[in-house]
Amino acid sequence: MSNYNEMWRSLGLNMTVHDQLMQVLPPTYHDVYLMQPNRPQGMEYFDFVVNEIHGLRIQELQEHKKAGGKVIGAFCVFVPEEIVRAAGGICIGLCSGIDIGTAEAEKVLPRNICPLIKSFMGFKLGKVCPYFESCDMVVGETTCDGKKKAFEILNDYIPVHVMETPHMKKSRDRELWLEEVKDFAHMVEKATGHNITANDLAKAIKEVNGKRQALQRLAELRKQDPAPISGKDSLLIEQIAMYDDVTRFTAKVNELCNELEKKVQASKGVFPSRTPRVIVTGTPMAIPNWKVPHIIETSGAVIVAEELCTGLRYFENEVAEDVQTMDGLLENIAGRCLGVNCAVFTPNTGRIERLLQLVEDYQADGVIHCALSFCDPYTVEANRVENVLKQHKIPLLKIETGYDQEDTGQLKTRIEAFIEMIS
Amino acid sequence: MSNYNEMWRSLGLNMTVHDQLMQVLPPTYHDVYLMQPNRPQGMEYFDFVVNEIHGLRIQELQEHKKAGGKVIGAFCVFVPEEIVRAAGGICIGLCSGIDIGTAEAEKVLPRNICPLIKSFMGFKLGKVCPYFESCDMVVGETTCDGKKKAFEILNDYIPVHVMETPHMKKSRDRELWLEEVKDFAHMVEKATGHNITANDLAKAIKEVNGKRQALQRLAELRKQDPAPISGKDSLLIEQIAMYDDVTRFTAKVNELCNELEKKVQASKGVFPSRTPRVIVTGTPMAIPNWKVPHIIETSGAVIVAEELCTGLRYFENEVAEDVQTMDGLLENIAGRCLGVNCAVFTPNTGRIERLLQLVEDYQADGVIHCALSFCDPYTVEANRVENVLKQHKIPLLKIETGYDQEDTGQLKTRIEAFIEMIS
Repeated sequence: MSNYNEMWRSLGLNMTVHDQLMQVLPPTYHDVYLMQPNRPQGMEYFDFVVNEIHGLRIQELQEHKKAGGKVIGAFCVFVPEEIVRAAGGICIGLCSGIDIGTAEAEKVLPRNICPLIKSFMGFKLGKVCPYFESCDMVVGETTCDGKKKAFEILNDYIPVHVMETPHMKKSRDRELWLEEVKDFAHMVEKATGHNITANDLAKAIKEVNGKRQALQRLAELRKQDPAPISGKDSLLIEQIAMYDDVTRFTAKVNELCNELEKKVQASKGVFPSRTPRVIVTGTPMAIPNWKVPHIIETSGAVIVAEELCTGLRYFENEVAEDVQTMDGLLENIAGRCLGVNCAVFTPNTGRIERLLQLVEDYQADGVIHCALSFCDPYTVEANRVENVLKQHKIPLLKIETGYDQEDTGQLKTRIEAFIEMIS
Repeated sequence: MSNYNEMWRSLGLNMTVHDQLMQVLPPTYHDVYLMQPNRPQGMEYFDFVVNEIHGLRIQELQEHKKAGGKVIGAFCVFVPEEIVRAAGGICIGLCSGIDIGTAEAEKVLPRNICPLIKSFMGFKLGKVCPYFESCDMVVGETTCDGKKKAFEILNDYIPVHVMETPHMKKSRDRELWLEEVKDFAHMVEKATGHNITANDLAKAIKEVNGKRQALQRLAELRKQDPAPISGKDSLLIEQIAMYDDVTRFTAKVNELCNELEKKVQASKGVFPSRTPRVIVTGTPMAIPNWKVPHIIETSGAVIVAEELCTGLRYFENEVAEDVQTMDGLLENIAGRCLGVNCAVFTPNTGRIERLLQLVEDYQADGVIHCALSFCDPYTVEANRVENVLKQHKIPLLKIETGYDQEDTGQLKTRIEAFIEMIS
């Protein structure tokens, strides 16, 4: 990727730290991804995307910007990508899954805070993320205390628009959130200088729904035994969904699904039939956080679903396409968000019900609850998950971990024991 | 307090652990409070209240209940005590400031969570708090992730009504919060079987405002140099405000203020004139969490104000008394809450502006930002406070600590150095 050096420099990246990052990623990716047996051919595209993670896609964003387009960063499945797209902008996920710029981040953040927050702050303050540096602005939300307050600090370094996500799902919450979505649309129109028409928005909704449908199609295929694709590869695709070009990505996922359908028909899988099947649930796993999935799938189990924001929560709810008016479309966009089983909601019973359904639909042998350290919404809600799964006699392993590799050995021991138990 | 054993037993308290607690408190209180020089005589009442903390007041609550009254526990200055009072109920603060029942609490909560949350869960699960056991129900809120999600668990053990506190102060937030306050009033009417009239509510507002005015009067007196009362004593009074009888407490605070006014006229104080003056700001300090104030005031400084929920945030905003209708009164109650400078709000610029004003009004030499460990709202917002105070060249010390005593030595070293610097 050396030919991108000039672009990275022009973005103001800290080249020394960025070079270090670029040297760490390929061997990690090789070990975690390329060594997997029986990978579908269709993964080649996604391997290519990762290989070009700070290259080609950034170049595309720069070209988009040169042509007058805007790039808006986001951190949450609540931020309506459709609206950005309808205004001719590109929406990019900025959640970060690696310890980087920690010393810089800890100058403005407490030490004991969720690693995802420390990571995005580290990327920004350390100037290591070309996505961040390509953004004209970022959109935050109030889904957790840490992010909510960190966005106030981030706003010192890049303009941040914060959407107020409600904490319940009552009609007054729906009204508040709809107003937030409308404000967001106005803000995006102003930022892009592009008035959004109902036609634009309906088209963008259709396209982003198309992405969700492709991911849902992939998810459906994973109900099969043997699993036609690994959990790690699926997670990677779900992570890439947040920053790749929407229509190209959708086409590539559908191509992959065509291939997987044939594998399913031929009863071919990536792991032997009757491999213990695990559902992962909890805090989002931002790229390149593959730590726990890698341990699980190298310990004798296969992950068949991710009840995560980098997983089902991202695509299982579509925006209804049953209206044509601007107001109706915005209402449908707002409505989708309130269907998400995020731990911001109290209570979040929908998540538990969904988990029970997933265990049945995906014939899972157990659930691994994986929360990031210091993530109160998920570490506390884990107790609710535990209680109900226990009632239903569904085996559960609760993990709390960060991005560092120090606990890998201990995690492997616990995960192996869990998989042995559910085998 | 041995004559209360029967009452405690009838409340189902774990007598062994409760006895241990009752043995720890008096010597701590003796060292932290009774050893202070030049204490006002009016503190005798508050010493008595602490001495009877699990005795007389609990007896009063039990008598209230025997007469058909209800007791409602709360954790936040947002919960409208006026409404409970207007319905003939008693509202009791349940925030807890000591490590207790930790093993029990950690069965349902993550280890790394704010000690205040772990403490109230420990008190409830360990059956050590006669206030908790006297409550017919508790009222939670969504001011932080940890409490919000912990209330879901607490609801397994005692009925919890959660009020959704908004995270911004826009008109849509005011509307949402007003609806929450109205729901709360209906819920309280149902729980108490007592219909609230506008007259009842206006009277309750007047009484609770009276408590706030007395506390404000006390706060005003602390602007004097020499300070007529210690910060520790003031904090104690603010802590007691949350569970003592409203009218008796108000009268006692006013009596104390009468005495302090005379001391001020005679230029008498608890510390010498020109003692370094400190403002404490951050996470609430629930009784008996006096750790940091004790270190500060035994290290050569006096605390002149607490910008805390157990402090100014509790009483600095009154409910407007300019209306007579039920709707108007509820609107005023809701309006007061949105004046509170709680870190739940993003941004919370009001808090910073208030701090600057307090430093000027109270002639403070420095500010100590004291946040509980793992409290994202305040540990992250500390950066905002730091930035602005730095701009105004106001010395700041940032502390993050829990309820344990392990870091006392280290804290004392840091606080002494800070006080030396501002002297």
